[in-house]
Formats: sequence, structure tokens, C-alpha cells
Amino acid sequence: MSSTYGERFRFTIFGQSHSPAIGVTIEGIPAGSRIDTGRLQLFLERRAPGHDATATPRKEADYVEFLCGIKDGITCGTPLTAIIRNTNTRSGDYDKLRTCPRPGHADYTGAVRYKDAQDPAGGGHFSGRLTAPLCIAGGIALQLLAQQGITIGSHIQTIEAVADDAFDPMNISAQALKALAAMRFPVLREGAEEEMRQAVLDALQDGDSVGGIIECAAVGLPAGWGDPMFGGMENRIAQIVFGIPAVRGLEFGAGFAAAAMRGSRHNDPFVVKDGSVTTATNHHGGILGGITSGMPLLFRAAIKPTPSIGMTQHTADLKTGEQTELSIGGRHDPCIVPRAVPVMEAAAAAAIYDAYLCSL
Amino acid sequence: MSSTYGERFRFTIFGQSHSPAIGVTIEGIPAGSRIDTGRLQLFLERRAPGHDATATPRKEADYVEFLCGIKDGITCGTPLTAIIRNTNTRSGDYDKLRTCPRPGHADYTGAVRYKDAQDPAGGGHFSGRLTAPLCIAGGIALQLLAQQGITIGSHIQTIEAVADDAFDPMNISAQALKALAAMRFPVLREGAEEEMRQAVLDALQDGDSVGGIIECAAVGLPAGWGDPMFGGMENRIAQIVFGIPAVRGLEFGAGFAAAAMRGSRHNDPFVVKDGSVTTATNHHGGILGGITSGMPLLFRAAIKPTPSIGMTQHTADLKTGEQTELSIGGRHDPCIVPRAVPVMEAAAAAAIYDAYLCSL
Amino acid sequence: MSSTYGERFRFTIFGQSHSPAIGVTIEGIPAGSRIDTGRLQLFLERRAPGHDATATPRKEADYVEFLCGIKDGITCGTPLTAIIRNTNTRSGDYDKLRTCPRPGHADYTGAVRYKDAQDPAGGGHFSGRLTAPLCIAGGIALQLLAQQGITIGSHIQTIEAVADDAFDPMNISAQALKALAAMRFPVLREGAEEEMRQAVLDALQDGDSVGGIIECAAVGLPAGWGDPMFGGMENRIAQIVFGIPAVRGLEFGAGFAAAAMRGSRHNDPFVVKDGSVTTATNHHGGILGGITSGMPLLFRAAIKPTPSIGMTQHTADLKTGEQTELSIGGRHDPCIVPRAVPVMEAAAAAAIYDAYLCSL
Amino acid sequence: MSSTYGERFRFTIFGQSHSPAIGVTIEGIPAGSRIDTGRLQLFLERRAPGHDATATPRKEADYVEFLCGIKDGITCGTPLTAIIRNTNTRSGDYDKLRTCPRPGHADYTGAVRYKDAQDPAGGGHFSGRLTAPLCIAGGIALQLLAQQGITIGSHIQTIEAVADDAFDPMNISAQALKALAAMRFPVLREGAEEEMRQAVLDALQDGDSVGGIIECAAVGLPAGWGDPMFGGMENRIAQIVFGIPAVRGLEFGAGFAAAAMRGSRHNDPFVVKDGSVTTATNHHGGILGGITSGMPLLFRAAIKPTPSIGMTQHTADLKTGEQTELSIGGRHDPCIVPRAVPVMEAAAAAAIYDAYLCSL
Repeated sequence: MSSTYGERFRFTIFGQSHSPAIGVTIEGIPAGSRIDTGRLQLFLERRAPGHDATATPRKEADYVEFLCGIKDGITCGTPLTAIIRNTNTRSGDYDKLRTCPRPGHADYTGAVRYKDAQDPAGGGHFSGRLTAPLCIAGGIALQLLAQQGITIGSHIQTIEAVADDAFDPMNISAQALKALAAMRFPVLREGAEEEMRQAVLDALQDGDSVGGIIECAAVGLPAGWGDPMFGGMENRIAQIVFGIPAVRGLEFGAGFAAAAMRGSRHNDPFVVKDGSVTTATNHHGGILGGITSGMPLLFRAAIKPTPSIGMTQHTADLKTGEQTELSIGGRHDPCIVPRAVPVMEAAAAAAIYDAYLCSL
Repeated sequence: MSSTYGERFRFTIFGQSHSPAIGVTIEGIPAGSRIDTGRLQLFLERRAPGHDATATPRKEADYVEFLCGIKDGITCGTPLTAIIRNTNTRSGDYDKLRTCPRPGHADYTGAVRYKDAQDPAGGGHFSGRLTAPLCIAGGIALQLLAQQGITIGSHIQTIEAVADDAFDPMNISAQALKALAAMRFPVLREGAEEEMRQAVLDALQDGDSVGGIIECAAVGLPAGWGDPMFGGMENRIAQIVFGIPAVRGLEFGAGFAAAAMRGSRHNDPFVVKDGSVTTATNHHGGILGGITSGMPLLFRAAIKPTPSIGMTQHTADLKTGEQTELSIGGRHDPCIVPRAVPVMEAAAAAAIYDAYLCSL
Repeated sequence: MSSTYGERFRFTIFGQSHSPAIGVTIEGIPAGSRIDTGRLQLFLERRAPGHDATATPRKEADYVEFLCGIKDGITCGTPLTAIIRNTNTRSGDYDKLRTCPRPGHADYTGAVRYKDAQDPAGGGHFSGRLTAPLCIAGGIALQLLAQQGITIGSHIQTIEAVADDAFDPMNISAQALKALAAMRFPVLREGAEEEMRQAVLDALQDGDSVGGIIECAAVGLPAGWGDPMFGGMENRIAQIVFGIPAVRGLEFGAGFAAAAMRGSRHNDPFVVKDGSVTTATNHHGGILGGITSGMPLLFRAAIKPTPSIGMTQHTADLKTGEQTELSIGGRHDPCIVPRAVPVMEAAAAAAIYDAYLCSL
Repeated sequence: MSSTYGERFRFTIFGQSHSPAIGVTIEGIPAGSRIDTGRLQLFLERRAPGHDATATPRKEADYVEFLCGIKDGITCGTPLTAIIRNTNTRSGDYDKLRTCPRPGHADYTGAVRYKDAQDPAGGGHFSGRLTAPLCIAGGIALQLLAQQGITIGSHIQTIEAVADDAFDPMNISAQALKALAAMRFPVLREGAEEEMRQAVLDALQDGDSVGGIIECAAVGLPAGWGDPMFGGMENRIAQIVFGIPAVRGLEFGAGFAAAAMRGSRHNDPFVVKDGSVTTATNHHGGILGGITSGMPLLFRAAIKPTPSIGMTQHTADLKTGEQTELSIGGRHDPCIVPRAVPVMEAAAAAAIYDAYLCSL
């Protein structure tokens, strides 16, 4: 089913942008796991808007309410459901979206798929708001992985034409990843943040938006997690990462650049170091045959520019069949990339934790 | 489960490179579907080696034997199993792979995952040979989609540094795709084939290998197939495409390039043309919110250079913990990209057909 | 996953007896389906306690709150979540249950399974209270089936030694089933209710409890729903019915009595009547090879006596390893059978509706 | 999917009675498991016909051929496929079955479900012959469970009106179960076999058939396997046991008899014996809340009389709509019960082993 992810750590995300609540139901969290709900709440605040001129000034409290499955911070083993009330919804005239679909949005395709019965307000179930419950599930997975010494972190690789430095795939420390998680605008290169913010503000001034690339890493993984074929780490991560709205591309290790390399360069020689197997280089991004090698797991995801822009756009009036113009009011993000960073980490964590349970 | 794909058109791929047989068990093919088994056999020959100096001279008959589920070319509605006997296997000393894993292969990670009990001969279940049963499942899906007027085709976008022209995302005809399918080395630009072959032969001469990018398109799709979140067309295609060995990256529509665009450019305005809804441009690659828009569906996958190369490579002897050298004998592909083209189409077809059944 | 049921109409039941809320998340309800939420609320009241001396006097409001997936009574196509707040919980000393498990309950096995981390209060996730969200999912399925002319109904076949008449498997009308649904104590034979009530009251007076058998029927089903092997109507119904606490047996059509019949008697001859195929008798209970035949679908489920009884019982103190005595206070049902009737119908409806979607 | 069973030990059964082969594809067998293929072959012979006047004289070699997933008796961790060639098929005029369906068979319902495209020869995918691959999967599970000290065995509880003694639910030894497995006609009571055989031969002489009940037990199970709700041991066993053709009823522990008991009698008091928790009686049949208690797991399944009988039967000619008579030639079992015994054990083993893997 399409809003369900995972085999053994399995969750279903529910809700619409303007429904009474959104949330997630999770099965498969091992009984007796300790979850720090305060820390989870802080994790969710990383994706919340309202912090910054580069994001929508809309306030979303995103207060997580646990309905079941956890007691005194300890999981019961049975399903856990957590919800977030939708409080700050402005009910505009969303019926217009059915007649004049917003370019780059799911208004039109969603209407066809659901025979005009979907809830279009605020994007409905397609809204980026639904990444909040994804962060609940993934935030729990992050904590459970951390208890095993695994750290996941990311930085903004690019925004529009501005590039950050790249991770050194051979040298990514847990501390560095944790430091990035503490930054609202996580980048590696000094000065990158200011340049990127400027690119966003320039677009905002034009009533326009920009996209970017996020680079995500996981360290501390043992070798041997993941499965061949359709259960590989890439498949698992891809299935969840493409569930984040606006993701248009995904690559692992050397990624697309690998296509231009020769085998002699791309192949990473094995070495035994301090009694444990590792590789001399890390073009493979920590995954071979779908299975972790023990090297840092590395992937990059491309985020398209936010489709909601202030500029007047061309679209069609589906009723009349005439070309028309559309002005999207409301409060939108000129760039979703910074807010997508914790979502990417949550997604990676959910995929990796599920692969771990499947490897038992 | 990791070797199983699909929700309603669901199949499990089984076999090892050197086991008595490989094959696929498929559930969910609608009863009464007509399958042209002769055409399916021809489709499989597109991925078979032995045609060309750019591929391994190893002969694989790849004769498909149907065990059940089809009678007189008509599917029964109950599971269909088809197998290919492994006849031309040279049993080398594969025990060495456990001690001295081949760089870029799953020898090491597979051994960790399966506690040294996996069958390493010829790569075992991780072998590229397992794409043959994927072509059986996908080849059936291709025929079933064709019966609905949907055509899938691909071209080689790059090999090493040589680039073909790109598809024009607004103008991809079924005929053009069919013409590509008839070419052993499908490219759009005149001269591209020769340049690419030269790149492969150059690498071969050096005992090396090259990778490349495949661009794949599906036309004739109606709007409204696919699902939100983890059941989107991208998620479905990603989950299967990353199951093809050597795929390192995947992008849809404008893909990674979208990350550098502004929203005003990337957004595709809707237009009504001859009474049907379409878009004026196709940066979205035929998918919005995970659901088909009716425009050509377009994706690109990056294939790493074949890890099996003739050159002597460095690796570790896991027993002694010493560095050592490895020379991979046998018959290998200096470039897997041309043979991966029909596999990519098969994967796309399986994903799209499954999404179709889920949309009913 | 264990609290999830269904393939295409798929739901996960969550909550514990004393958690803030219980509920259900459903995927796969076709978009644009009309749900009468008022009628659903009334359906849930059929299982609510507090009506009668034969049930617990405990009041459970069981007010259904829809969080998403439905708008103005029309389903959106995306996940639907509905919850019931747990308001009337008396927090007793449930820690004792871990030391001195109640006979016939899951206190001990649940503690072993969940490493003592499960929530034992009120039975936790094992509580009969969790049949309320099952009634939400099944109640929705009942309405969707009713829109196709399918009616499901039941009567109490036995309570302890008191037997009702049995359904005539050849003559079950939709009206009769609807009439039964309007009865709080649905029986066919005049006088059966009084005798059954007396049996319950006798047990209650002794601080004891009784069980019984429910016979359930579905009429209006077309031929051709269900699947062979593990997806047969029996398998689907069994998988959900054994999820109702206290069910110990299940039989279809002639059931266990079939084991004593000869084939010549048990086989139901086919007849063509008014142009449609039917059978002259209905020992097969409307299912052949797992697939509906168009005849009334008929099954019986055995419910064990409520394990919570007022009498002092023997159990072990797991800490000391000594035998001890246990007195279960609180408000319990001396007989769960009447309240289990709508639950049985809900379960049957969910199974049948899912089979229908799988047959498309 | 309907011919697929299991979550972590997951298999798909394929084939038709008269297709080139039948078989099973299994995912999830832990790598490095030792399988005695010779013993598996002997297990399959327990269900093979041709031994006895009470079964069809038809010979089925049922030779198991492993295509992959196992090497030198050790599982690889990747999918295992095993097939049995169909050699001894008499191709009769099965088209008649579409016009004049056999009473008690799936001829009619299968044709409706599969739009007349199913393969009706010999019953197609609905044939009892498909229990052979179920015995492959279950036979492997039996061996894996035996390696953990778990034994599964059964006896014939009744055939027509002849009853065997019942298991003593408190005293079932592994040795006794193994002794039963060595008997072709496993019963507990001396003389029962002769009486039962006579009942079968009497029916055979009349051109008729008889059914019966099988009682199955598993001992050596630890407490804590299985899950609440739909993943309970009963649900898991029910989902697979109702996949055995002809099963019409299923009960656990005291079963239907529990419905007539009072709670004070049915509840099994806990006791601590030699430091481990057990119960003083075993009405619960080793399962509480869906989870094993450590006591013998006990269930009974009712098998209907074989629908294929020699006597002339009434049926309808679906083409003409007229009543007609049908004489089923061929070689049929007057009683399927003895051959169903190992199938029942295989089914139980598959369910229990899968529950075990899910409890990890």
C-alpha cells in the first residue's frame, strides 16, 4: 500500500494538510526500546517552518501526541500511533485547484487518480506537511540506531548554483555528523551558508523558488545489513526517499559520476585494517550487492525547486479548456531544501533500521 | 522479501549463477492474458551475451521453459513459473572469492550477510545472470502494456565520456522507441555507436571496463496511475531499477538538473489540447505526486563500470589479513550497458504494470 | 505484521485498553465511497457494554473520531484513521498481573513475548476492547458491501448448553439478517433468548462465565470472489476471526459434521435456476475451492467462556514460584457472546470486502 | 497473494495438476541451515498415493528436484526453488468440466473467477496434488523445527463415524508423535485402524467416499512465539490449514467444546514446575492471546468426504441449462484423510516456523 513503508519496522502515514490530524502508525518496534520523546520533539522542530526568511513564515507547532504503544518512554512491542493536530490551517478556496491545477503539484494527477474525491486543501495527502509523521517514524529509528552506535547526518550539497564541499567518503566522523545536525543550515564549507541564503532570498524577491541537493551519510554501520535484488540498501532507501515530495534524483557512492569512470578506478580494493575488513577507497558508498560493507553509507538526493511560487503562472482551466493564469497566494517556502534535511535523515534511518531488523 | 517485487503483479526471482536453473515465479497475471512466448524469447535474446566484441563471448542459451500458469499462450490466472537451465557453467575455484573478495563485487558483503553459506560461484544470486528471469517477468509486463497501447524504449545516453543525444521529453513517439528496441546498440545520434564501441574496446584492450547511463521512456500512459508517498511511480521504478546490479543512480524528468533550476522554469504549465490535459513542457518526466500525468515518463539510470576486469587488482586475503593481488580470469563484459538496456525496459514495465493493477 | 489485516482493504489496529486512545488506520478504501458515519456509530454501539445484566456494567462511550481520509462522508482514497478515546479507565495495580498471571488470559504469554515491556493494564493490546476499532474497519466494509446488495448477519447459535435453531443454509434472506441485526440478543427460536439469558445469569451468580457459538451468514454475494490456496474465503475469514479474542474454533458450511458424511450426501448438485447457476443443497457454505459460489456463505465460530471470572482462581506467583490464589475484581462480562456478534459481522465484512477488491 | 504464505519464511506454490511441473519457491530460509533432502523425500512419500486400497491406485513419483538455494544440503540464504515433474497425467476431456461442473469441486467457481481461462485438467491449481509442494516447504520447516527440539505429529481422530482416542493434551511426548509419523495409518487406539479401513472400503464399494478429522500436536515449543490479533498462532495455522483442499473446520485446544464449558473449568491455572511456568490443565491448547504458552499446541481439522466419487451424480449442463448426470471416471481416493496427515503436519510446521522467525 502506498502510504505504508517497511517490512519489519513498518509504518503507515496518514492525514491531509487540512484534516483534523496527521500521524503515523508503526508496527514492529521491538518491545522494551527506550525512546526519548523530548529529543524526538526537538528533532521534529528541525523540519518545522517559521524559523527563517528562507522558509514559510507559517507556524506549525507540530506537537507530537502519542496515542499508544509507548509507556514511560518504553515501547510496548504493540503498534505505536502518534499524531499531530492540524491547528493552523487557513481554509482557502481549494476547489479552484481542481479546475485550475497548480503547475508542478499533484492537484491534477491526484484528482484523476482519486476521481475528484481527494481532499485538495493544502495539497491534501500529497502535502509536504506529511513529512512530519515521516520524521516521527524516522526519528524513532534514528534513536534506535544511535543506541547501536550508528549516526546519520547530512549537509546541503547545493542550492541552485551554489555548491558546498562534498563529504570525504573515507573520512566522515560521527561527531561531524552530529555537529551538522545542530546547524539550522548544515554546510561543510565556510561561507556556503551565506551564499546559499542569498540565492534563496534572490529567488524570493523574484517571487520564485530554488531547489538543491542534499548529501546524507550514515556511519557506524556494520557489514552485512541489507539484501540482494529488490531488498538492497539502495532499493530500500530509494523507495522511501522518493516518497519525500520534490525528490527527483538519487545516487549512491560515486553515483552518476561512476558512469564515466573505468572499473580500475571505481573498484575499491579491500584492505584489512586492525583486524577488520575495509576498503581503500569508497566509491561504492558503503553498499556492495545491496549489502552494507561497513564503510560510510553515502547518498545524494536532488530536490526540485518548490512548485508553489509567488509569480503568476500559466495553467489551464480544465472546465473551460482555456488557458488561464494562476497566482498562488498563501505562505510558501522559497526553498524547501533546509527543511528537507532532517526528513532525509529520518527516511534514511527508517530504511536502515528496517534493513537491520530484516537481517536478524 | 528481497528477491520479490510487486504488489499485484508480484514475482520472486530465484537461482544462482551456477545452480541447476534460474527462474521466476509470478503471481497476479490476469487470467486470460495472451502472451506471445516466441516474442518473449526474442526479447530475452536482447540481453544475452555473445553477440559482440563489447560483451562477454560466453554463450548463454537462455531458453525459457514454462512450468505452469500458461496454456496455449493464455495465462491461467494462477502462478506462472518459468525457468532457464544453467548449462554453460565453468566451475572454477570460487572458494578463493571467500578469502580474497573481488573489488566492486558482493563476494565479501554476501559472505557476511549469509554467514559464508551463500553460493559464490559466478556471483551466486548476486550475479548479473539473474537479470534474465527479471526479463521474463518484465517481458510479460511489456506485452501486457503493449496491449494497452503503451510502449517502453531506451537508448544509451552515455558510455564513459561519450554522450548520445537526449530524448526530447515532449516528443517521444512509440515508433521511435520500437526502432530503438530493434537496435543492438540503441542510440539517437548518428556516430554515437561507433564512438561508444571504441570507448569499450579501448577499455577492453587495457583489461579495463567502462560504465554508462541509460535513458528510458514510456509513452501511451494515461494520467492517474501510481500512488502517493511510497507507492509513487518513482518509488516503484526505483525499487526495481536498483535491483539491477551495477545501478548507482536514478533520476526522473529533469532529475539532478532540476536542483539548479528555479521553480518558474521547472514548473510545467498545464494546457488543454484537443480536449485532453497535458503540459507545455515536461520537466516533471510524466510523474506528479507519484502519479502519471499522461506525458512521456522519463528516467535515467547510471551503470557503474563492470567490476570484473582483466587487470590485476589489489585486494586483501581475509584469512591472512595480508594485502594480495587478484587476477580475475574468465569471460567478462568490458561494458554491461548495452545488455542492460532491455533489462531496464523490463524493470520499468514490471513497475508500471504493477502500478496499473494497483490503480484498478 | 500481526495487528494488520488485509491485502487491498488493509488496516492496522492500534491501542491498549488503557492507552490515551485506540483506533485503526485503513488503506485502500476506494476514493469517493460514501460512508454514513452516524450509522457506523450505531453499529459500534451494538458491541458496547452497559446495556444489560449479561454484560459488564462498565460504560464505554466508544465515540468514533475521524482524523483523516474522509470529508463530508466521502472517502478521499488516502489513508483513513479513526480513533476512540479511552476515558473510563480505572488504573488498578496491573503490575500484579506480571507476577500472578490470570488464567485464560495473555498476561503470561504477552509478558514472555514482549520481554515484560507490554502494557498489561486492562489486557493492553490483547484486550477485547480492541474489537472496537475492528468494528470501525468492518463497519465501513459492511456499508460498502451493502451498497453492492450484500448483507451479513448472525445469530447466537448456543450459549453454554442452550441451543438456538440453525440457519437453513438454503433459505437465508437479507431481511431476516437485517432483523437479527436489530436485536440486542439475536436468536431465531422463540424462547431461546430467555433460556440463554438465564444461563448467563446463573453463571454470573456463581461468579462464573459461559461461552457460546455464533453462526454468521452473508447473502447477495456473486460467484467468483476469493482465491485458491491461502487466499480462499475460508483462509481470509479464519485469519481475521481468530483475531477476535476468545475464538477457539471455526467451521464453514457443514463444518465438522461434514467429516461424518459421505461424499454422495455432502456434494451439492449444481442446478440452473432462472438462468443462473446455483446448488440444490448448501453443505459447502457458499465456498468451493476458496471461491464464492453465489450461495449463502455460512460459518460458525466457537467462543470460549470469558476468562475473567469473579470466583477465586488458582495461579502461580511467578516471582516466588509458589501456588497462590487470584481474585479478579473489576467489571467483567459473564458472557461475551452477544457483544461478539457485531464483531463477527465486522470481521466477516472486512474479509469479504478485501476479497472483493482482490478479485478486481 | 493467494498462493503465497508466510511473512519471513515465505513461499509461493505453483503449478497445475497437469502442467509440466509443480513446485514451490521459498524465501527466508536462514543461510547455513542443514536440510536432509533424503529425509524430505521420505516425508513426501507419506502423502503419495498408491500404497493402499484406501487411496487412489494412481502412482505419483513425486521426485523433488532442487533448482537453487541449496548446495550440498546447506541452504544459501537466497530463494530456494524445488519442483516435481508431472509425469503420470492422463489427459482426459476436461472441457466437459466447464460445461458440467463436478459437485463439491472448484470447477464452476474457478471458471467464474478466472474467466474460463483456468486450466481445469485434473483440477488445475485447485488440485490436491498441489499439497505436494506444500509438503516440500513444510517438510523443510519440520526439519528446522526438529533442530530446535520441536516435534509435530498427528493421528486420525475420526473417519466417518469411527473415532480414535484423543490426545491427552497434558501428556503428548515427542516419541509418541514420532511413532505416529512412522505409521501409514496413524491412530492411538488399537483396532481403530481396522474399523476405519473398513469404513473406507465400505464407501468405496458403494462408489462413495468418506471424510474425517485429524488431530495434530506440536511439542517442545517454548513460550513466547506468535503475535496478538491477526498474527496469532491460531490465525497463522488457520490461514495455511484452510489452504489444504477439503478442510471445513478447525479448532484449537478444547475448541468447539469450550463453548459449552464454564470459565472456571476452561481456565487453565498456572503452575511453576521445576522452575518453569506451565499450566495444570491444557484446554487452551498451548496458545494464549495468540502466543505459545509452552504447553503442547493442539488443533483438529475436519476434512470433508472426497468430492470425486464413482457414483453417478446430478449436476447441471451450464450450456443448455438442463439437469444432467455426471460419472467421474479416473482413479480417486475414497478417503483423503490418511494422505492429508503429513500435509497437516507440513502446514503446521510452516506456520510455526514462520511465527518463530517473526518472534526474533
